[in-house]
Amino acid sequence: MAIPHESSALIATGFPSSTRGTSGCDLSSGQSNVIQGVYPAKPVVRDDIGPEPVSIMGNEGVATVEGFEEDGNVEQKLKVGDRVVMGVPQLGTWQSHANLPFTSLIPLPESCPLSLRQAATLAINPPTALRMLSDFVPLNPEDPNALTKQGGKKQPSIAELKSHLESLGADHVLTYDEFLSRENNTRSKIKEWIGKDGEMRLALNCVGGKETAEMCKLLSLDGKLVTYGGMAKTALALPPSLFIFRKLTSTGFWLSNWVQTHPEERQTMMQSLAALVSSGKLKEPETEVVELEGTDEEVTRQLSEVMKKMEEGRGKKTLLHWKDE
Amino acid sequence: MAIPHESSALIATGFPSSTRGTSGCDLSSGQSNVIQGVYPAKPVVRDDIGPEPVSIMGNEGVATVEGFEEDGNVEQKLKVGDRVVMGVPQLGTWQSHANLPFTSLIPLPESCPLSLRQAATLAINPPTALRMLSDFVPLNPEDPNALTKQGGKKQPSIAELKSHLESLGADHVLTYDEFLSRENNTRSKIKEWIGKDGEMRLALNCVGGKETAEMCKLLSLDGKLVTYGGMAKTALALPPSLFIFRKLTSTGFWLSNWVQTHPEERQTMMQSLAALVSSGKLKEPETEVVELEGTDEEVTRQLSEVMKKMEEGRGKKTLLHWKDE
Repeated sequence: MAIPHESSALIATGFPSSTRGTSGCDLSSGQSNVIQGVYPAKPVVRDDIGPEPVSIMGNEGVATVEGFEEDGNVEQKLKVGDRVVMGVPQLGTWQSHANLPFTSLIPLPESCPLSLRQAATLAINPPTALRMLSDFVPLNPEDPNALTKQGGKKQPSIAELKSHLESLGADHVLTYDEFLSRENNTRSKIKEWIGKDGEMRLALNCVGGKETAEMCKLLSLDGKLVTYGGMAKTALALPPSLFIFRKLTSTGFWLSNWVQTHPEERQTMMQSLAALVSSGKLKEPETEVVELEGTDEEVTRQLSEVMKKMEEGRGKKTLLHWKDE
Repeated sequence: MAIPHESSALIATGFPSSTRGTSGCDLSSGQSNVIQGVYPAKPVVRDDIGPEPVSIMGNEGVATVEGFEEDGNVEQKLKVGDRVVMGVPQLGTWQSHANLPFTSLIPLPESCPLSLRQAATLAINPPTALRMLSDFVPLNPEDPNALTKQGGKKQPSIAELKSHLESLGADHVLTYDEFLSRENNTRSKIKEWIGKDGEMRLALNCVGGKETAEMCKLLSLDGKLVTYGGMAKTALALPPSLFIFRKLTSTGFWLSNWVQTHPEERQTMMQSLAALVSSGKLKEPETEVVELEGTDEEVTRQLSEVMKKMEEGRGKKTLLHWKDE
């Protein structure tokens, strides 16, 4: 796969003619699934860039608008110098410059200054988290009544991970060993945490596997399980009795589906998320920036190393940064 | 466990003093789970009947009202000679006579004459089926767009079972071997059945296991899986991708839960179901009647035989009939 770091320009009226400095582009497991062809969003193959057909990867990112051709619409939404994040999946952010339909970009409010790291990670994870905590059951944010299952196979240290989750706002973090251990008396502990009349109504799952059922058994009658990932790569195993007698509802969340049905709401949500991150109330994930420079071959080599590290489950979320030439 | 075939009378004002001839009492797998103590409805232990504490089993049944003590309420709902079905779970229908709160009984309309078999099987399965076909997605009854998974481990002949399901109204019946076979080209067949623009939106499941996922993969985006039983005694194995990308919702149905939240609607529903069965539009399940007579010991022996047969998965749904003394 060729990864061009500068696209040839495809100028179209009403589109920004170039967005400069895609300063943070994600390398996520979703992205790796796109490359493998196992993600519902298939790579777009382009033959307008070079002698061979290529697909430009990259779903997240932040860019600066360098210019556009006025058409009576674009100039009402963008101005040169605006910072934008991606409003459409798989726009191909692994490139230094791109011509993109202005309708696929979300300008960030100038009143909420964000670092490049904060902006580059704003468009996917924070809205996913917000929607999952808002759309399924009415939650009181003062109560620790959302049971969040976070996972990662080769995290370097469980203690580090736990403290990281706590820094992100988790009231209580249990590993699965702790969670399933009978000695640990987890059920009584959890009852203590949620209080006498407290109810666990929402469980968020990005792992899957048979342990998911243990989590669901702690939910109150009519509880909701929302799956947004499947890092264990095995099916959720849920006993019929949970559905029949405990009125469990198991559903899923994918931001791309939500965005399609809520285009307006998405714009205002992104503004509020920018304000939350800017004020420090919402913390961006820990990231590592890889600076890209040099020839196509050199950049390809740098990216291959990053991909390898990611496949092995090592390291933080990686952002690519195209050094200014 | 002692199974008395005549309870001592517990007379209470406003209750029918006796309901005579519990003519059809169910023996279902649910009932067997109650006896094993693994059903959410636990057996009620009574010490007012004989020298030893007993639990009276039986969830379904039809009875005739023999009398009651007038209290200004009961006589507005019941009259002597009325046929009634059970409106509350686990009333204990394995007895010839019982004193029951009149609020727990549903009188059958005289305008819809039902056979004893029809009446005895009216209160659980037909409302469950109706609710599952009405409450989850809007279905057009002219379209074969509900994929129903019916199971039974030791059915004597698959051909018989298929023809039975067809006689109950199934447009197409597939065994799991047929369903999963690649040679059979099931997907194209099903597409043909539902038509070019047809969508499979609802799947009903009383089996469970990993095959449930294959059924769900045929559902349209936003499809619903409703589980009302788990005859395979294994968890549903559902891949995360079905929830995340295909917007699958997996939920369950239990009539007891529904009844608690819809007491009024239940009364009118039972009247319409009686009319449907009486007119022949809805067919009762195939049943086998076991006539009970003799001493407690003799009746216990007869019941043990029936239970054994049921445990082995042989025979039809069994109704108990207390012979008039």
